[in-house]
Amino acid sequence: MAGVLSSAVHGNPIARIVSGSNPNRPLFFHRPLAVAVSTTHQSYWSSVNADIDAHLNKSIPSKPPLVVFEPMRHLTFSAPQTTAPALCIAACELVGGHRDQAIAAASALHLMHASAFTHENLPLTERPKPTFDHTYGPNIRLLMADGMIAFGFELLARADNNSNRVLRAIIEISRAMGTQGVMAGQYNESQLGESDGTEAFHVGWLHNVCSKKGGVLHACAGACGATLGGGSEEEIEKLRRYGLYVGTIQGILNRVEKNEWSIKEVKELRVLGLRELKDFNQEKIDQWRYNLISATSEYYIFNIFKQ
Amino acid sequence: MAGVLSSAVHGNPIARIVSGSNPNRPLFFHRPLAVAVSTTHQSYWSSVNADIDAHLNKSIPSKPPLVVFEPMRHLTFSAPQTTAPALCIAACELVGGHRDQAIAAASALHLMHASAFTHENLPLTERPKPTFDHTYGPNIRLLMADGMIAFGFELLARADNNSNRVLRAIIEISRAMGTQGVMAGQYNESQLGESDGTEAFHVGWLHNVCSKKGGVLHACAGACGATLGGGSEEEIEKLRRYGLYVGTIQGILNRVEKNEWSIKEVKELRVLGLRELKDFNQEKIDQWRYNLISATSEYYIFNIFKQ
Repeated sequence: MAGVLSSAVHGNPIARIVSGSNPNRPLFFHRPLAVAVSTTHQSYWSSVNADIDAHLNKSIPSKPPLVVFEPMRHLTFSAPQTTAPALCIAACELVGGHRDQAIAAASALHLMHASAFTHENLPLTERPKPTFDHTYGPNIRLLMADGMIAFGFELLARADNNSNRVLRAIIEISRAMGTQGVMAGQYNESQLGESDGTEAFHVGWLHNVCSKKGGVLHACAGACGATLGGGSEEEIEKLRRYGLYVGTIQGILNRVEKNEWSIKEVKELRVLGLRELKDFNQEKIDQWRYNLISATSEYYIFNIFKQ
Repeated sequence: MAGVLSSAVHGNPIARIVSGSNPNRPLFFHRPLAVAVSTTHQSYWSSVNADIDAHLNKSIPSKPPLVVFEPMRHLTFSAPQTTAPALCIAACELVGGHRDQAIAAASALHLMHASAFTHENLPLTERPKPTFDHTYGPNIRLLMADGMIAFGFELLARADNNSNRVLRAIIEISRAMGTQGVMAGQYNESQLGESDGTEAFHVGWLHNVCSKKGGVLHACAGACGATLGGGSEEEIEKLRRYGLYVGTIQGILNRVEKNEWSIKEVKELRVLGLRELKDFNQEKIDQWRYNLISATSEYYIFNIFKQ
């Protein structure tokens, strides 16, 4: 993928951020997926998302001290939803695992993402951005998001699965959120934010932000799900790369005005991503794609996977 | 301990914050311990702290991207030092474990504490406090501290120890940093900070902040060390309670002007704390205490453990 993006650098393509967009806005789309479908037509993805929501709802109780638990629930459930937690479950099931084996990791991934989103949107004195959610003040949002990271790791460490697999998943998630992943992407994204977010930016910046943020998060989700489901090393790496392509594509579509360059780039990434899936159970893969179209049409990815 | 503190509530004792203190200042004391002692006189505690420093130094490399790793190193090594990481190692060795079995957990505890300290001192728009360290701006300190939490869990998950013990330690640390521990203490402390930090405050507030912050951190350190060193459930719980008393005592001494009430309170907590140690190897315990006096005289606790 790096090749696909870096090859574009030589052609000196300059893209512009989607008009009016805020480089600090969420990478993804707001929950809920709001797909009012009957049970018989409920898609694979919406059933997975409903299970993750139910697990989070059960795990973060509304209990005293309410001053602590209510903000955590609010920040968890009001954060934008990403496709990474659902991909974690899907990868687990694709390698023959059971949904229960990956539900804690999927919930942890949402908590990590919701925490990162909360901190991205904090009004610091050097960055007095307007807040889009006034339910809680900056101080409590700062502290709660720290608590959400810790709670995500707790959920995962308590997961009912093989201890060594769980430890691998903890390492995957901690790396994805850290200096080689989301945190590095956030830092790079904030640097552009400081130049007001409207000027032309270079493909190198785009590559870094899209691959480090959504890319690494989804790569981690694919790898964690496959690990927790008992997949082979080869399956884990295929689903890691698939996740990287999915997350990077989403990042580009969410940040760049559609133009000849971005369409070409996304098409190439899509081919690479689909190639990673070709050795898996095609019946399950077909279910993924069909349902990704029918149930999550809000996703930009709709345009990519449409046959 | 709750009994000791709550019994004081009925006497309606009102304490004042140490004159000129900032309720958001670090609970503990700045590193290094700065004890210039010859090797032959090097105390148990300074040798433990040196090993933790060396482990952190090796674990957080100074490598590209420097824009990411340098701030993380800076925030890790410039943060105030607490006695919790050293207690984690001491507890491990007290139950018969080897230092290497707890070094990752001790390093993780310092990273968690350094992260919490960094976030406590961030200038938010609603809390434009002056910063005491201008090396890096608020945005990078915000992001790096998130990365430090994740990195702490990564270090621990990679630890060379029994998987089930490591998972227990991860759960201990995530709970200690979360809604039932440090995060809740920080929230309560910040509430007082908003009332300028000089007015009289109630023992209930003091109890909450001291036990949730330093208390829970040290309780976690004692329990993690004993768990990782292969201690029995009884040993784990004794060292958890011992840590709770140690951290709470430190919190009181760092926040309250010495007065009749605080001296009585601390003396009672000290008796309870020492009682938890009576069934352990007294030779090792004597080494702890002797050295805690000789090598860490900067600690307020010096006054407590002096025989």
